[in-house]
Amino acid sequence: MKQPTEVNQRCSIARSLTVLGEKWTLLVVRDVRLGITRFSDIRARLGVAPDVLTDRLGKLVELGVLERRTYRADGARARDEYVLTPAGDELAPVLASLSEWGDKHLPTGYAPSTRYVEAESGRLLHLAFVDEDDHPVPLDDVVVERGSGAIGVPAG
Amino acid sequence: MKQPTEVNQRCSIARSLTVLGEKWTLLVVRDVRLGITRFSDIRARLGVAPDVLTDRLGKLVELGVLERRTYRADGARARDEYVLTPAGDELAPVLASLSEWGDKHLPTGYAPSTRYVEAESGRLLHLAFVDEDDHPVPLDDVVVERGSGAIGVPAG
Repeated sequence: MKQPTEVNQRCSIARSLTVLGEKWTLLVVRDVRLGITRFSDIRARLGVAPDVLTDRLGKLVELGVLERRTYRADGARARDEYVLTPAGDELAPVLASLSEWGDKHLPTGYAPSTRYVEAESGRLLHLAFVDEDDHPVPLDDVVVERGSGAIGVPAG
Repeated sequence: MKQPTEVNQRCSIARSLTVLGEKWTLLVVRDVRLGITRFSDIRARLGVAPDVLTDRLGKLVELGVLERRTYRADGARARDEYVLTPAGDELAPVLASLSEWGDKHLPTGYAPSTRYVEAESGRLLHLAFVDEDDHPVPLDDVVVERGSGAIGVPAG
């Protein structure tokens, strides 16, 4: 059997979770996506200690998920805010899948607190597995198999 | 501004992450989904301490994601193995979204180590946002908005 570290280095789920699996990280991405971009606003919403939030924001910038920008409110000193990079935008399916699962399996009695919609039409969207012709496939027909990368076949 | 705990209780992402966000949890779900169902096999693959794995398996059973079953190998004492419940099966989009994101944004040079395929045809699948008519919508056209549950509107 391969060494655990080798299994997990080749597993893209494990690699994604190296940073995204840390406490608060995905909630920070969620908040920035909702337009809450300033340190003090994120901190107030999450109730997270400032040093922990500083650490998580730094790791997300390093991972290429967030970009730090400077803004200056009238008469105040320059401060940082955070925006999603294109790679950060592409975390939408991660957030949406956690949101859909929680809405279904851990209901609160309230309506969903976030909705994914088509920008122009406002139509409600959901996540689905689709084939190469963009046809959705029911979850019961989806299986996961080990890819060739698991045994060390190069990409390409 | 609402209290942080209230924001996060109403957020299905935060609720999902209460257990799924703990270190190792999603990797355990990944392994069980790949057919690695026995405590000793999961432990060997992940390289996780036995007491930590016991804790995570217990939480996943409590959350309704895994079910514990007893098996007995020839001449050995009864042992536990773990299988996915229907709610656990429905975590496939969470795992697939982390996998797709990692394959794209944190490449290793190896081919993908897991592939999602249609059971019967073996055709490769990927995750997409689809509208109510099952038409895929490009990620650039997807926006997230706060749902009515965020301000306390009951479900239904």
